[in-house]
Amino acid sequence: MHSVLSYIDQNQDRFLQELKAFLRIASISTDPAYKSDMLLCASSVQQQFIDIGLENVQVFPTEGHPIVYGEWLHAPGKPTVLFYGHYDVQPPDPLALWVSPPFEPTVREGQLYARGASDDKGQVWCHLKSIEAWLKTQGQLPVNVKVIIEGEEEIGSKHLFKFISEHTELLKSDVALVSDTPMIAQDVPSICFSLRGLVYLELKVTGCTSDLHSGQHGGAVPNPINALATIISKLKDTQNRVTIPGFYDDVLPISDTLHHDILALPHSDETYLKDLGAKALCGEEGFTTLERRWLRPTLDCNGIFGGYTGEGEKTVIASHATVKLSMRLVANQDPYKITKAFRDFLPSITPPEVTVEVKEYSGAFAARVNPEHPAIEAAKKALESAFGVPARLQGEGGTVPIVNEFEKKLGIQTVLMGLNLANDNIHAPNERFSLSNFYRGIKASAHFWKELGSQSFPR
Amino acid sequence: MHSVLSYIDQNQDRFLQELKAFLRIASISTDPAYKSDMLLCASSVQQQFIDIGLENVQVFPTEGHPIVYGEWLHAPGKPTVLFYGHYDVQPPDPLALWVSPPFEPTVREGQLYARGASDDKGQVWCHLKSIEAWLKTQGQLPVNVKVIIEGEEEIGSKHLFKFISEHTELLKSDVALVSDTPMIAQDVPSICFSLRGLVYLELKVTGCTSDLHSGQHGGAVPNPINALATIISKLKDTQNRVTIPGFYDDVLPISDTLHHDILALPHSDETYLKDLGAKALCGEEGFTTLERRWLRPTLDCNGIFGGYTGEGEKTVIASHATVKLSMRLVANQDPYKITKAFRDFLPSITPPEVTVEVKEYSGAFAARVNPEHPAIEAAKKALESAFGVPARLQGEGGTVPIVNEFEKKLGIQTVLMGLNLANDNIHAPNERFSLSNFYRGIKASAHFWKELGSQSFPR
Repeated sequence: MHSVLSYIDQNQDRFLQELKAFLRIASISTDPAYKSDMLLCASSVQQQFIDIGLENVQVFPTEGHPIVYGEWLHAPGKPTVLFYGHYDVQPPDPLALWVSPPFEPTVREGQLYARGASDDKGQVWCHLKSIEAWLKTQGQLPVNVKVIIEGEEEIGSKHLFKFISEHTELLKSDVALVSDTPMIAQDVPSICFSLRGLVYLELKVTGCTSDLHSGQHGGAVPNPINALATIISKLKDTQNRVTIPGFYDDVLPISDTLHHDILALPHSDETYLKDLGAKALCGEEGFTTLERRWLRPTLDCNGIFGGYTGEGEKTVIASHATVKLSMRLVANQDPYKITKAFRDFLPSITPPEVTVEVKEYSGAFAARVNPEHPAIEAAKKALESAFGVPARLQGEGGTVPIVNEFEKKLGIQTVLMGLNLANDNIHAPNERFSLSNFYRGIKASAHFWKELGSQSFPR
Repeated sequence: MHSVLSYIDQNQDRFLQELKAFLRIASISTDPAYKSDMLLCASSVQQQFIDIGLENVQVFPTEGHPIVYGEWLHAPGKPTVLFYGHYDVQPPDPLALWVSPPFEPTVREGQLYARGASDDKGQVWCHLKSIEAWLKTQGQLPVNVKVIIEGEEEIGSKHLFKFISEHTELLKSDVALVSDTPMIAQDVPSICFSLRGLVYLELKVTGCTSDLHSGQHGGAVPNPINALATIISKLKDTQNRVTIPGFYDDVLPISDTLHHDILALPHSDETYLKDLGAKALCGEEGFTTLERRWLRPTLDCNGIFGGYTGEGEKTVIASHATVKLSMRLVANQDPYKITKAFRDFLPSITPPEVTVEVKEYSGAFAARVNPEHPAIEAAKKALESAFGVPARLQGEGGTVPIVNEFEKKLGIQTVLMGLNLANDNIHAPNERFSLSNFYRGIKASAHFWKELGSQSFPR
């Protein structure tokens, strides 16, 4: 173990340079304009797999973006870990708010700034570099490893799900490892026990067939922006509860134990509010901030547009207006059922003078992890070795849809080893990853292979 | 008169070519990117004034866009008419919906398509060409004429108002003439008796200082899009009445006579709805469509944007969201008072977790014209001569702020001689002006100078 850790220390700078090269590729999966960057990025992952010593390296094309696979399977009798990550990133806009350009990785005050630095390229790099450290110094790993890095996590992992169904034998493993969730606080290593699910929709409201002069016609014709505002305003009540009938039907209550465990975590509403720079927190009445973020479902608009959005004024009544909105779901809620409930409810809150069309983007189930799984024990020990303090269990409000897929299709649990921080601005301008977490993450990963190799493991 | 009309017939094609050249200039006043096109356009108006025989032609610079002035004052003892028009146009977006490009004037099926074809370049051209016809064939006009063509009508005419206050002697006249309102129906020449006023505002709602991941934070933090939707939804009630306290306080009731006069105008809700292509008309309960458009105030959102507006999905909670909205006012409502009432009301409908900033764009008083003014009589006769059917009096929902200014600063009434049609798509894609209205408009204008010269006129 000593030589593995020494190797990591000695190669820190090179690891950083390699990660920067990876971050320079604008692998924006949602935007068709970046198709060739996506191919380039998949290809760079493939090369990296070969360089660090993985075997049977393959790039699987899909109808969307490619999936890259590699493995090292020479630890007979030891558990097999399926490490999953993604090479695609969120769009970087609004560009004007980035201090340094999103695809020119820049280190400032110990932080590496770039789109994808935390989500998920930086965290992927931690595990690839620990595999490299083991294989280059020991010629072997303490466990068997399979790695898949996909390119559609930010758009719902649709083709990966199909890939998993079609490759259950190739992917057969004892446990999965994912680092795509944050730590609960600076210097407090964390393992995530719950993820929220997702339903992402787009509504287009149409009034007249053409834009109209708001003076000539205003007051007598449908206004789709006003109508859309009415629809949105009726989706939540004054207690910030979603009004869709049946929305909360399948939501499990939060047990007293869980409520108190969460209260004991290092979190302060005051600090959180200060970090956000908002006037006030707001959310569903009767729940704490962490409960609202991790264990309660919600609904948020993610984008809205219609009519004249340029500089100055234009006296127009738009023909149509659009909102992108998403619902975060919790364990036991079904995204298909929720989508149907939304569709069923929509006509009742749509003003009669307009029409509304619904476009469905991705959907995902929420996930819960069994905290007593031996791989969770191994991860706790590994994190404590690397960070010097005990790891904590925490929830996460985001979605890692793959966790549910692994359970459903491969019958395995997932260790969600968080290596970045909640204020690392993922999905926002100035995304970052602290270099200290990057380096400690590599070491934690190196320890994890060892700890896992020494666990007695259920088969 | 015969030679004047013959001249118009003989020069139709040249007049159209000249108008096309005028329409090719992208004189978009609201967008600073078109500053040089605005200067070019003012300069082309100046040249036109000189070419048709106006005298004392001057381009007055302002802090915004220039004002072009010209005159012909050699009809002693005859009334002086102040003809006003504007050379600026609305932005052409959404560009994708134009059949031919907005600044490449194109004739299809007797219609001239271009941004500004109706509003207001085409109508300005009618009067300039009738002046040319008189001066080139007779060497004189039957009245004295002063002409001002400004470049800021679409953004509130702010600098023109200052110009008028500073040039009351230069502009001193007996009556004003404006063609910037539509005809009530195809082949039915119309004079407008009322215009609505305007208050145009922009609201910016801010939640957190940065965009956030909607999974990590959703349910616990302010969402400015949802908050903005709530604000908008509370600005009108279910009867489509504006909810701002005091909004209707100064609105004058519609007299029974006026109600019945309007009912007698050629208008069909069925045809109107069909033209709009909407599911249903909608507006304030208790009023007819024409009353809603002409004589009742209203509130419409004109543009909205916030968060992710690109293709696909992005799970983001925006830092802020913006709406552009305008209120149309009617006679006796004060735009300053209404703006204040809006500002006073806003905090009560703003969710406590967000802040909202208000930006004020233009404001304008509504206007009413005395239908018994001798210039109205002259206009009626002129229109009947050109169109072959009697002219009708109609209202107009849009704003021509200058009408109030002329009354207030110069003490004169305005003849609003409508030459285009309500479905000519002004402020919308595929704006047009029918060639038959263009040519009949020139003749109506030629008749108007003659009729006005023979009216006994109050001084």
